[in-house]
Amino acid sequence: MNRYAIILAAGQGTRMKSKLYKVLHPVCGKPMVEHVVDQLSSLSIDQTVTIVGFGAEKVQSYLEGKSDFALQKEQLGTAHAVMQAEELLQDKKGITLVICGDTPLIKTSTMEALMEEHTKLGAKATVLTDYAEDPTGYGRVIRNEDGHVERIVEQKDASEAEKSSKRNYGYILLSTIPGDLKKVKNDNAQGEYYLPDVMEILKSEGQIVAAYQTSDLEETLGVNDRVALSQAETIMRKRINEAHMRNGVTIIDPASTYIEADVQIGKDTVILPNTYIQGLSVIGEDCLIGPGTEIKACKIGNATTIKQSVAHDSEIGDEVTIGPFAHIRPASSIHNEVKIGNFVEVKKSEMGPKSKASHLSYIGDAKVGSDVNLGCGSITVNYDGKNKHLTTIEDGAFIGCNSNLIAPVTVGKGAYVAAGSTVTEDVPSEALTIARARQVNKEDYVKNLNLK
Amino acid sequence: MNRYAIILAAGQGTRMKSKLYKVLHPVCGKPMVEHVVDQLSSLSIDQTVTIVGFGAEKVQSYLEGKSDFALQKEQLGTAHAVMQAEELLQDKKGITLVICGDTPLIKTSTMEALMEEHTKLGAKATVLTDYAEDPTGYGRVIRNEDGHVERIVEQKDASEAEKSSKRNYGYILLSTIPGDLKKVKNDNAQGEYYLPDVMEILKSEGQIVAAYQTSDLEETLGVNDRVALSQAETIMRKRINEAHMRNGVTIIDPASTYIEADVQIGKDTVILPNTYIQGLSVIGEDCLIGPGTEIKACKIGNATTIKQSVAHDSEIGDEVTIGPFAHIRPASSIHNEVKIGNFVEVKKSEMGPKSKASHLSYIGDAKVGSDVNLGCGSITVNYDGKNKHLTTIEDGAFIGCNSNLIAPVTVGKGAYVAAGSTVTEDVPSEALTIARARQVNKEDYVKNLNLK
Amino acid sequence: MNRYAIILAAGQGTRMKSKLYKVLHPVCGKPMVEHVVDQLSSLSIDQTVTIVGFGAEKVQSYLEGKSDFALQKEQLGTAHAVMQAEELLQDKKGITLVICGDTPLIKTSTMEALMEEHTKLGAKATVLTDYAEDPTGYGRVIRNEDGHVERIVEQKDASEAEKSSKRNYGYILLSTIPGDLKKVKNDNAQGEYYLPDVMEILKSEGQIVAAYQTSDLEETLGVNDRVALSQAETIMRKRINEAHMRNGVTIIDPASTYIEADVQIGKDTVILPNTYIQGLSVIGEDCLIGPGTEIKACKIGNATTIKQSVAHDSEIGDEVTIGPFAHIRPASSIHNEVKIGNFVEVKKSEMGPKSKASHLSYIGDAKVGSDVNLGCGSITVNYDGKNKHLTTIEDGAFIGCNSNLIAPVTVGKGAYVAAGSTVTEDVPSEALTIARARQVNKEDYVKNLNLK
Repeated sequence: MNRYAIILAAGQGTRMKSKLYKVLHPVCGKPMVEHVVDQLSSLSIDQTVTIVGFGAEKVQSYLEGKSDFALQKEQLGTAHAVMQAEELLQDKKGITLVICGDTPLIKTSTMEALMEEHTKLGAKATVLTDYAEDPTGYGRVIRNEDGHVERIVEQKDASEAEKSSKRNYGYILLSTIPGDLKKVKNDNAQGEYYLPDVMEILKSEGQIVAAYQTSDLEETLGVNDRVALSQAETIMRKRINEAHMRNGVTIIDPASTYIEADVQIGKDTVILPNTYIQGLSVIGEDCLIGPGTEIKACKIGNATTIKQSVAHDSEIGDEVTIGPFAHIRPASSIHNEVKIGNFVEVKKSEMGPKSKASHLSYIGDAKVGSDVNLGCGSITVNYDGKNKHLTTIEDGAFIGCNSNLIAPVTVGKGAYVAAGSTVTEDVPSEALTIARARQVNKEDYVKNLNLK
Repeated sequence: MNRYAIILAAGQGTRMKSKLYKVLHPVCGKPMVEHVVDQLSSLSIDQTVTIVGFGAEKVQSYLEGKSDFALQKEQLGTAHAVMQAEELLQDKKGITLVICGDTPLIKTSTMEALMEEHTKLGAKATVLTDYAEDPTGYGRVIRNEDGHVERIVEQKDASEAEKSSKRNYGYILLSTIPGDLKKVKNDNAQGEYYLPDVMEILKSEGQIVAAYQTSDLEETLGVNDRVALSQAETIMRKRINEAHMRNGVTIIDPASTYIEADVQIGKDTVILPNTYIQGLSVIGEDCLIGPGTEIKACKIGNATTIKQSVAHDSEIGDEVTIGPFAHIRPASSIHNEVKIGNFVEVKKSEMGPKSKASHLSYIGDAKVGSDVNLGCGSITVNYDGKNKHLTTIEDGAFIGCNSNLIAPVTVGKGAYVAAGSTVTEDVPSEALTIARARQVNKEDYVKNLNLK
Repeated sequence: MNRYAIILAAGQGTRMKSKLYKVLHPVCGKPMVEHVVDQLSSLSIDQTVTIVGFGAEKVQSYLEGKSDFALQKEQLGTAHAVMQAEELLQDKKGITLVICGDTPLIKTSTMEALMEEHTKLGAKATVLTDYAEDPTGYGRVIRNEDGHVERIVEQKDASEAEKSSKRNYGYILLSTIPGDLKKVKNDNAQGEYYLPDVMEILKSEGQIVAAYQTSDLEETLGVNDRVALSQAETIMRKRINEAHMRNGVTIIDPASTYIEADVQIGKDTVILPNTYIQGLSVIGEDCLIGPGTEIKACKIGNATTIKQSVAHDSEIGDEVTIGPFAHIRPASSIHNEVKIGNFVEVKKSEMGPKSKASHLSYIGDAKVGSDVNLGCGSITVNYDGKNKHLTTIEDGAFIGCNSNLIAPVTVGKGAYVAAGSTVTEDVPSEALTIARARQVNKEDYVKNLNLK
């Protein structure tokens, strides 16, 4: 049997109080609707249609290639939203999964189980339910004696007795054909076409309307405001971190460790608190990352230490030590056994194996060989006010403290730049270069000054 | 009917083990007694009297202008404490709210509801109660069949049966006249005059003693040691952060975000974890603040980014980027579109629009125009060992790397300071200034050295 | 009666997915088996035997001097493990406490109470139990009507009825003689000798097998994977932090404050979040530590402030201010009232009283006197590419900005180094030293350049 999915993503989300379209608010770095789509991708879905409305183009640009789209011009209720997919799905036979785009915690396994239950029972519709301690604000699933669904009511239309039901519906519904939705009417307080109303219509036609209850209460959390957004973030964070821990990563404080969904981390790596690992970062084994570290889109080898530092869009090798208080900016390549110490910035540069920049340096637009020592306060002067230029420092060179290398310039192999020099011309291999004034001591100068 | 408030703030708080007076210990940056006073300020209170004892002058200096004061010289119990306000309140008619100064979480709405309940029931006294899972250490409210108060007992004087009551009293009591307190006796184990004893006296006189139960269990948390202090901090933090989230601020991890009570934040601003926003800071819309950032008493515009940095007592404009690892010290003014990069300190300086100090700089006592580029490692030398002097850098100037500007000095409009220069005299507009030695390459120097 | 302890520490811990031996995984900085041994050390234990297997030598090197060892070559079950101690304990009379090395949260007081209960009841064996909400994966204690133990079963061998018991056994067992263990058979699904089986054997012999239930559910948490490891860390962290708070230390957010077990902190010190205090650090009274600070093995005086900084293996005096973004490396001695400001690194150096290094400096291998001012960007050039040399800066010296002191070198008392100087020779007391080129202004240079 074919399987279709409809994602409801047209709501404006006024309680978010945001210029950003609701389903694009990120959870652990990924828009919530993308979490939904990613979970769907592991099911055998023949076609996915996302219903867009407010902010349609932005949602489409995010999901391009992963979904088809149908536009809901007016917000006339959830049944009306699903109906917008009719044209795309009308001639197709199968079952259709309807999911809210603001439920980022839903899992593939639950959707699969829901579809299996639906098929097994021969139901015409099946609703996912959970049990909420406090269902205020959510619709309620009222079940009859044989466990099938009696009625689903929105909070605002529920009687007091119905409100007391602890069983809310999880925003997900399975139906064989969207066409049944045409029978839904909007004769309610809000004048909207409610998706749950199709249940009663199907029931009155003698169809089976089933309910499937999840064991995980958190999965169907709908994000309607930023408090719920932070709750979804907390749950997703926990889920991601537990998966890494079960894979052999030590996370000292999972509650204060922020790892995005697509990060890979090797065994026996230790992640200290207040650490952010983002994008498609890949971290090797036996590393020590954090505390207070932000890593975005980096590939990091084994046995590397990065503490109290920031690294973006770079490659970092094995047995490298970075930090505390270092900054690796994009397009840098840090080879094995390099040391980048405190208050050092590396930008769009290569640091060859075993080279060191231990303190207060800026290495920008530079190609640094192996075994180079960049002294404290040494700077590659890559910018002349108009253009950026390249600095080349060859293997084994020694760059003195507080020196400037005015790019474009090359310091040859094994050369030595004296401390305090400003280097404007190339330095031959094995040469010493010096550019500084001779020291003059004016004796008793201070004493005499004070006498005045 | 007139309304009075008495704040009990005379206790020494020995379990705090502190030199600091108990009610002055801060919760989210504000002394706990000030939280109480601030909540009272929204009620129509005709007169507030704070009972002070140990550390009286410090409490008075904090609350000056917000409260009158009565001194309790000896610590003879809560009833005795309230009695100290007698002289101030004696000829006045009305109801009196008695609040503990160590319950920083109490809300205006609860106090208002308590007073309304009191008036509605025609009670002579009404006690605020809540339901505690573990009431150990707290007094217990024993109610009779009609819901009125039977008796209130302190933990230490409670029978085993009374101890099992889960209902503790919330340290707040409403009474029509403090004069009734004269009837309270000190014939108990501690020889103290207990405020709750007035209940039984009033009851024996046939008066109604009522109880009003809060729905929020946390409000009446009394802070007696630093464990409770941290609990109050956690609850207050959550309360503050949820209010910001409901206003349209994204807070990635509310549990690790530390915002003081009087901070304002605009919509669609994102606050990353481990961020501290303090004092009367005002942050605009669409900003990105954090992670690892401390902001105190700053006014920040819209669409500004501040990461892994510290900023105090300064003004920061729109579309500014600061950090990572930058430090904005007091009395700085950072105009729109400025960039302050890593390892840069700005102190008591103005940075004009679109100016940049991207790395390893110190800008102190400086007036920097617009479109200025401060090179890496450039320093305003504002201190000669005795006095601080001003540096002026006019629009469009370019300051080379590792250069020193020895204040007082002016770099004119569009002037260019060569890298490695120490500038002691003014630089005319559009001039190039240079102050460095010529580079000398000593060929094979290193090779020869190694041969020896 | 003599008391013996057997620590089970031979398991490989495959679910940890680690190269590190399971019981050596640290909890709050200390290997979990060491927590167990430390708690045992306060009981009067006559002999402790640790059963080692996989990774034996590493465990032994950690516990050397605190325990004897017996090797379990093959992993044939817990009873088999205990049997390995037979040779060491065989001729001894007394009671033997068997503890798992992977239960780092067990407390002395609980073990003492367990042994007392055992003795009081005249039991042959007593098992520690607790009540688990979700005992999945743990063995179950089945008690009979008189409260004694009926049977203990492992999860995998339990019947469905037994699985429903909420009472799990806490991995601890008291037995009078290991010799009884010889009767244990391995006729179960796994072919292992289970320690709990001795219970039934003793019972069949008419002996009393008792159970003692802890009130603290967390103590018997067994760490089998890294999720449990992080849970143990969280509980231990809370325990440590609450002890400090009860002693008069303010911890703003105990959940995000990471203090190792052996740290000492004085009264009225405030610890801000995201702070790490490790090793044998001792911190005085009235200090302000954090946020975002890492302190390891430091001795710190009173009224000192350390913010957003890292300090290791150093001594720091009273009224010192460090940070934000400073780094104190090992073997440094920071005297009273010193200021170490932003982007300053101190390594293996002494800073005399009231000296200051406020910005962007490196002080390495230096002896700095009192009242010295190290200007912004000043550097001790301690490394010539081969060796490290000492810099001496005497009392009251003033070191100009962006200057280099090329070690070995001495700057005399009250001497003044001009900004931008590279100092290669000693500077006499009270002298001014200067080593820089004269400034040349090339008027209209920039203007002319632009005209081209």
